[in-house]
Amino acid sequence: MSQITLEQANAIIAGAFAKGREAGFKPLSVAVVDAGGHLISFQRGDGASFARAQIATGKAAGALSLGVSSRKVGDMAVERPWFIGAFASSAPHPVIPAAGGVIVVDGSGAFIGAVGVTGETSDNDEIAALAGIAAAGLAAQG
Amino acid sequence: MSQITLEQANAIIAGAFAKGREAGFKPLSVAVVDAGGHLISFQRGDGASFARAQIATGKAAGALSLGVSSRKVGDMAVERPWFIGAFASSAPHPVIPAAGGVIVVDGSGAFIGAVGVTGETSDNDEIAALAGIAAAGLAAQG
Amino acid sequence: MSQITLEQANAIIAGAFAKGREAGFKPLSVAVVDAGGHLISFQRGDGASFARAQIATGKAAGALSLGVSSRKVGDMAVERPWFIGAFASSAPHPVIPAAGGVIVVDGSGAFIGAVGVTGETSDNDEIAALAGIAAAGLAAQG
Amino acid sequence: MSQITLEQANAIIAGAFAKGREAGFKPLSVAVVDAGGHLISFQRGDGASFARAQIATGKAAGALSLGVSSRKVGDMAVERPWFIGAFASSAPHPVIPAAGGVIVVDGSGAFIGAVGVTGETSDNDEIAALAGIAAAGLAAQG
Repeated sequence: MSQITLEQANAIIAGAFAKGREAGFKPLSVAVVDAGGHLISFQRGDGASFARAQIATGKAAGALSLGVSSRKVGDMAVERPWFIGAFASSAPHPVIPAAGGVIVVDGSGAFIGAVGVTGETSDNDEIAALAGIAAAGLAAQG
Repeated sequence: MSQITLEQANAIIAGAFAKGREAGFKPLSVAVVDAGGHLISFQRGDGASFARAQIATGKAAGALSLGVSSRKVGDMAVERPWFIGAFASSAPHPVIPAAGGVIVVDGSGAFIGAVGVTGETSDNDEIAALAGIAAAGLAAQG
Repeated sequence: MSQITLEQANAIIAGAFAKGREAGFKPLSVAVVDAGGHLISFQRGDGASFARAQIATGKAAGALSLGVSSRKVGDMAVERPWFIGAFASSAPHPVIPAAGGVIVVDGSGAFIGAVGVTGETSDNDEIAALAGIAAAGLAAQG
Repeated sequence: MSQITLEQANAIIAGAFAKGREAGFKPLSVAVVDAGGHLISFQRGDGASFARAQIATGKAAGALSLGVSSRKVGDMAVERPWFIGAFASSAPHPVIPAAGGVIVVDGSGAFIGAVGVTGETSDNDEIAALAGIAAAGLAAQG
């Protein structure tokens, strides 16, 4: 398997939304990007503020651009804010350093894309991202 | 009715994709934006090239930014390329001057969002956009 | 085969340079990008002007972003300059609309990356790109 | 000697990669830029994440833009984050303030280019950069 299909991307989003409803989260927005960080599918929950596409995509693509979850990108931003600031301004896609962006891998561990969720606390965003990946029958980076 | 819901946006995309399949179009990508030009929903058809989000969003948001279809923005670009060139570089969203971006209106004619389609000829992109709006029970700018 | 390896990328560049020497071309610069348009390998020939990385990458990534060779992107720019101008300013990577950017495909025709060559006439740049792809045992988009 | 040749640049990269393999480093990516900070040669190791060109180039060009190693740029970022932040956003090339970017000098101490390495810890990136410069028979800024 070398890339996430649109059907899988939509299944990820449906799964993340289902988790949000079940858990009573605020309206979520979810982006799914391919291995190059380019958008495959995005949905913004009703009532969410208008720039959610940028945040969700920036968590997903930013994770891929450094090869770690956006939670770890967020940790790096706390430890070395100047590094992440400079990187974000030069990276090919937006880089949002906060949990909720999770890399999707194939059976060999190769990156096939990423999911970014925004709308709730970052911890809950990540829970929804992981739930969406599992709901689509895919695997998150370990 | 003051805005397009996520459910309506997804119905627009489903309707545009259905038209594409029925007509034998190449893989389409469809963006639905709110009245401010901000992304509500996007789907990129399998096999489409990677920058389709920018083109689809740029048709939809570009239409709203000038209050006419992206077909008319394209006509303006032929007549006054310097104007559209300068406008595009200063506008808050990308402006893609080619048919396929259609404004969605409510019963009073007020703008509630727009749809942008890319992947086929611009004429066919527009056919798919109009079909998607109709399939969702909404009205295109007259 | 889902992506171009570094070894293959360097073989492409060596093959393009060999063609350039054999044909008496001016100093070439060659970029190889992955399917997402991100740089894998680049070499600038001695004596070439300093912004060759941007041109070579912009031919390769620009081809992928629209799914056609940069020669066809160049044809589109002649026919609809406003469209390519607007697209280039919103695309995730630079888009250089001139021959010399060629998409590399796998056995099923799926895009696995692209090559961009600059330094000679655009026609000769394309000849070198095709020679490099062939030298690496890979296939150009038909 | 007034500039780094492509042959020397490739020797630097080969030397940095050899050090990485010998030391068991993660996949490295290496950029070599000329005295103006412009890319001569770049290679991204298989398995490295996609934005490595920006980081490697930003370490190398950022070092030259302030005339010190990117380790010292990183130290400046700790001491005066606002200065490096503002500088990075106005500089002609990306500026990545972390070790791994080393200036290359000629016999008189004049700058002839720089090397940027990314993929491992910043300390190890710098070790690989220095090894690459030495392997090419060149001298790092003292």
